[in-house]
Amino acid sequence: MGGLDPSALPDRSLPAHPPATARAASRVGGLERRLVRRVLEARGGLPFELELWNGERFGAPPESAVARVVLRDRATLLALAVNPQGAFGDAYARGRLDVQGDLVRLLELAFRARPREVGPAWAVGRLASRWLRPNTLRGSRANIWRHYDLGNDFYRLWLDENLVYTCAYFPTPEASLEAAQIAKLEHVCRKLRLRPGERVLEVGCGWGALAIHMALRWGARVRAFNISREQVAWARERAKELGLVGRVEFVEDDYRNASGRYDAFVSVGMLEHVGPSHYPELGHVIQRCLGPDGRGFLHSIGRDRALPFHPWIERNVFPGAYAPTLSEMLQILEPHDLVALDAENLRLHYARTLEHWLARFERHTEEVTRRFGEEFARMWRLYLAGSVAAFRTGSLQLFQVLFARTATNEIPWTRADLYAER
Amino acid sequence: MGGLDPSALPDRSLPAHPPATARAASRVGGLERRLVRRVLEARGGLPFELELWNGERFGAPPESAVARVVLRDRATLLALAVNPQGAFGDAYARGRLDVQGDLVRLLELAFRARPREVGPAWAVGRLASRWLRPNTLRGSRANIWRHYDLGNDFYRLWLDENLVYTCAYFPTPEASLEAAQIAKLEHVCRKLRLRPGERVLEVGCGWGALAIHMALRWGARVRAFNISREQVAWARERAKELGLVGRVEFVEDDYRNASGRYDAFVSVGMLEHVGPSHYPELGHVIQRCLGPDGRGFLHSIGRDRALPFHPWIERNVFPGAYAPTLSEMLQILEPHDLVALDAENLRLHYARTLEHWLARFERHTEEVTRRFGEEFARMWRLYLAGSVAAFRTGSLQLFQVLFARTATNEIPWTRADLYAER
Repeated sequence: MGGLDPSALPDRSLPAHPPATARAASRVGGLERRLVRRVLEARGGLPFELELWNGERFGAPPESAVARVVLRDRATLLALAVNPQGAFGDAYARGRLDVQGDLVRLLELAFRARPREVGPAWAVGRLASRWLRPNTLRGSRANIWRHYDLGNDFYRLWLDENLVYTCAYFPTPEASLEAAQIAKLEHVCRKLRLRPGERVLEVGCGWGALAIHMALRWGARVRAFNISREQVAWARERAKELGLVGRVEFVEDDYRNASGRYDAFVSVGMLEHVGPSHYPELGHVIQRCLGPDGRGFLHSIGRDRALPFHPWIERNVFPGAYAPTLSEMLQILEPHDLVALDAENLRLHYARTLEHWLARFERHTEEVTRRFGEEFARMWRLYLAGSVAAFRTGSLQLFQVLFARTATNEIPWTRADLYAER
Repeated sequence: MGGLDPSALPDRSLPAHPPATARAASRVGGLERRLVRRVLEARGGLPFELELWNGERFGAPPESAVARVVLRDRATLLALAVNPQGAFGDAYARGRLDVQGDLVRLLELAFRARPREVGPAWAVGRLASRWLRPNTLRGSRANIWRHYDLGNDFYRLWLDENLVYTCAYFPTPEASLEAAQIAKLEHVCRKLRLRPGERVLEVGCGWGALAIHMALRWGARVRAFNISREQVAWARERAKELGLVGRVEFVEDDYRNASGRYDAFVSVGMLEHVGPSHYPELGHVIQRCLGPDGRGFLHSIGRDRALPFHPWIERNVFPGAYAPTLSEMLQILEPHDLVALDAENLRLHYARTLEHWLARFERHTEEVTRRFGEEFARMWRLYLAGSVAAFRTGSLQLFQVLFARTATNEIPWTRADLYAER
């Protein structure tokens, strides 16, 4: 990987590149050099340059480095040495650490080099999350408001025109984000084999794009739940503009309070916020609300193995969130008269979606900074860049699961219809 | 459902239909009538007629009954009353119980009426299976020989010409069994995105149809494991006839002994015989043998919830077998660098496959009876008919899971290619 292996070198001889800037007036001392060594070891083999506050440089030579990580002070070096995974995000957001070069590529290489087992910081983070940011009725509101009620204007800067804040479906990788989000809405409706007039329960409806699409294009009658006040207000406005009053109802309430009987159940991008300890409650909602020939659909960020989100993401971006393995998702269904018909992993589509979001976000960095401050803008950029990297490397997955009542034979014969021209 | 509800009637007044045959010389006594009532209660609401050895008839009237269940003696009535689920199979196989009318439909209604929880007999059966018919290296041989080494000639009577003894894939329900089995082989190869020259490890290869198809039609080099001596001998002969020596190797050995590195892993219809306590061993085989860009495929009979096979089936037909839920299947992969890309439930295709097998079997009943005896023939018919019913009612599922190495991006962009014309 072109990285210098510092462990092979005696402590005092850790070589710095020749000082490249005027700032490098003096070389750092022995303690700092030990800390640098530790940081490079923790990221063993990653081809990046590490530049200190005095301009001194370590690590991979510039010609083979994918990026240069610049540390602004000794405290950041110390924090990185002590907690290499945990300190990076905070230091980046606060501007104490900068990345010059390809941030996504650097994170991608870091994810690829990640150990299969995670350290105790993750376990502690997970426990802290359960206690500090629980997904109870009240806790969920706090967690959701924190992320989704940043203001619709913020999301309008970098999402597609319909404000779809979940993985798109790109028929080809070259499709535009707008087209891919509409293709995703279609993909979901096709998988559900929606029929005109059917009653749909949606839980976690975001800004309402899917509910509106189902009503407008497929003739469904949709009841959609969401606890984000800003999103519900927007969605109601949109439905009114489109003349869908009476065909789409947006309910500002928790999914656990849903009632009635429906022909279809759908949840796109809410499961991440439910938390595995509350999966049984979600299972009961589906069991209670789905009719005898009903079909259901779950779409969620997932994992190849049971692991918490990166603690920095869980703390700063998605409080209380958890991405399940596919087997954990299925355990929502298996206690009930429900069975999976079809599961699809679309992780590369989420990587592509996030590339679009990141590029759009970058074009609006100034405005975001002006409105929310620099720390927020940097945090958000790191979150988007890290998510691209996570989906590219398989650290995160995207699962779509179609299911039905176990006993019904009103199920599709094959999946060929999903791919037929219309 | 048209069934007579005997629980509403006082014991002595349980009405029999007018004796319909000359055999009904005398009416049965009070004890037998209590036992009849118990049998009818246990199958509460099922529209069948129950005829006793003396010709007396109970239950649904002939015009609304889907079938007439005829008991040949008091011992069978007693056994059914004591253990309604467990005694039926043995009594049917031994000819002490007969079904006149639509056997499949009767079983289908029985499955639909099954309680969600199973009785203690099932739990005992499961434990007995673990102890008496374990899937250790030695135990697996005994279990597999018992079912698959009945003689190739037996299976040739009612399978397709390529002896594919797993769920077919019917592009339309009207496709012939022959066409549907070839379509299944194609569906598997397409899902695996096989490329010419790739090395494939198959475990549990049956009579070799898939291995041969992959080599002949897709240019793969296949190593296929099986512990059924009869099947391996047949497969080797077929490969030789087709000039595939050197491109397909059939190994008479346990899947646990597989070694080497492969581009693809495939297992169609073996998992049922592995048993959940041995899933970790299968997971290790895949982890050890699959290359960094490898794809894998698991195809198995499954369940909507974690339950043993019907004890009669497990004891008489598939010793040691277990059908997992989809989440149990995925737990083979999740401890490793493996992740599901695609899962498909084809249970109605297995119902259709079994309808074909049952019809062909019925055409050869005389020959089977001559060679294996009447009890075997009746047992086999009940197994096939019960399996049609189980897949029609969702009591059994059929899961196909495609997976890949977590870190590889050499994965299909969408599934549209599976459904494209070629």
